[in-house]
Amino acid sequence: MFPIQKNMSEKPLILVTNDDGIHARGLRELVEVMQFFGDIVVISSETAMSGKSSAITVDQPLRTVPFEKIHGVPTFKCSGTPVDSVKLSFNGLLDRKPDYVVSGINHGTNSSISVIYSGTMGAAIEGSLHGVPSMGFSLDDHHFDADFSKAKIIVAKVFQSVLENGLPPFTCLNVNIPKGKPKGIKVCRQAHGKWVEEFEKRTDPQGRDYHWMSGYFKNFELDSTETDIYWMENDYASVVPVTVDMTCYKTFEQIKNWVF
Amino acid sequence: MFPIQKNMSEKPLILVTNDDGIHARGLRELVEVMQFFGDIVVISSETAMSGKSSAITVDQPLRTVPFEKIHGVPTFKCSGTPVDSVKLSFNGLLDRKPDYVVSGINHGTNSSISVIYSGTMGAAIEGSLHGVPSMGFSLDDHHFDADFSKAKIIVAKVFQSVLENGLPPFTCLNVNIPKGKPKGIKVCRQAHGKWVEEFEKRTDPQGRDYHWMSGYFKNFELDSTETDIYWMENDYASVVPVTVDMTCYKTFEQIKNWVF
Repeated sequence: MFPIQKNMSEKPLILVTNDDGIHARGLRELVEVMQFFGDIVVISSETAMSGKSSAITVDQPLRTVPFEKIHGVPTFKCSGTPVDSVKLSFNGLLDRKPDYVVSGINHGTNSSISVIYSGTMGAAIEGSLHGVPSMGFSLDDHHFDADFSKAKIIVAKVFQSVLENGLPPFTCLNVNIPKGKPKGIKVCRQAHGKWVEEFEKRTDPQGRDYHWMSGYFKNFELDSTETDIYWMENDYASVVPVTVDMTCYKTFEQIKNWVF
Repeated sequence: MFPIQKNMSEKPLILVTNDDGIHARGLRELVEVMQFFGDIVVISSETAMSGKSSAITVDQPLRTVPFEKIHGVPTFKCSGTPVDSVKLSFNGLLDRKPDYVVSGINHGTNSSISVIYSGTMGAAIEGSLHGVPSMGFSLDDHHFDADFSKAKIIVAKVFQSVLENGLPPFTCLNVNIPKGKPKGIKVCRQAHGKWVEEFEKRTDPQGRDYHWMSGYFKNFELDSTETDIYWMENDYASVVPVTVDMTCYKTFEQIKNWVF
């Protein structure tokens, strides 16, 4: 086990991870703001893991090795997915279990249906399954030179609220932050929408076809004022509580008497 | 586009996919039973994709090529994940959009929290996002020589019910089937539980550490008679309707008035 507790105070231990990989700027920005709240350990994938959802590595061994410090805190790079990193952090890699899991700051939003594809949110959901308050943070700016300064204030405010109020078990927060200067923070629900893909077909120099995934987001409830998409479009940060129970109870009532 | 419609009747087109890969026996068994209900096309990953959740491939091109027929139906092997296969099937790969998506038959169960890690269910969830009735089927038997004969009867019964009754949009079914002879089929909810990991640390011949993920499932509601785990343990196939809306509405009510 890596001696994370050595020379550390009794402040909470906050696991910082992400899906853009250990070299991503958003990770460094998140470490910087989290240092105000506790002791930090970073475990993140050595390569980018965007779109890896809650994927786990079941058919390969995982390698996790100490890496360069970020803002003075210990880091480990992991060969696996964001969820693998979280699982390892609670199981034998550290001599102290994290008290909080924060994931991000993602380069790009994870609002609406993106929650199911997002590695950022996969890590946060996994944190909640380990019984600790967990959050995923995403900034609506893919540019490498994005301004995280305002986003970090949102992160601090949301984390402070979680510190003070706690979160119900097996629930995490999906926090999305607009570009520019957010007007405030709104607790809301996941917008009903989907990605419309437009695969682009190309031919390689050997004459073989391949496809690139691209597409755009389609919001199915343009008139709603209750959704994460609505508030993001109106320059507010959105906070959606996310459950691990995927049962559709409404459908359950409709089909429970089916005769097979 | 591949000419799937050519020489085919006006029967529904059923996309068959899985997460164990195009060579898996469960896929062949599912094709065999689905042939009673419509025209079939298989698109599946060329390698095993267990635990790939709703992962998508955003940083690599996708290659999808015709492969050997299974029980006389056309197949395509895809370099991507189960969700990639579903997305491609609805976007340019075929000249006819699938009317149903069925995924499996998985070698091993996907009940309770496994729904969030499962590539089988990732594909079914993705099918529902494309607006067609979608189902994931899993058999509680990892053995290569597993008996699928009873499972196929369950598959046929559940699919027949969906054919007759339809499914609400953006909802799919997570169908788990016990070993042996199931006593019946129960519509139920996802059990509240989690995987408890026990990473096994080893050292390779070069002296470098690595970890293997292992673990066991922990059911948090041993007394409940409403869950998929309960019915599976009592030799019934379980049918859980699954939503794409991950908002925790109960938590929303608790935190909506947080002052940030």
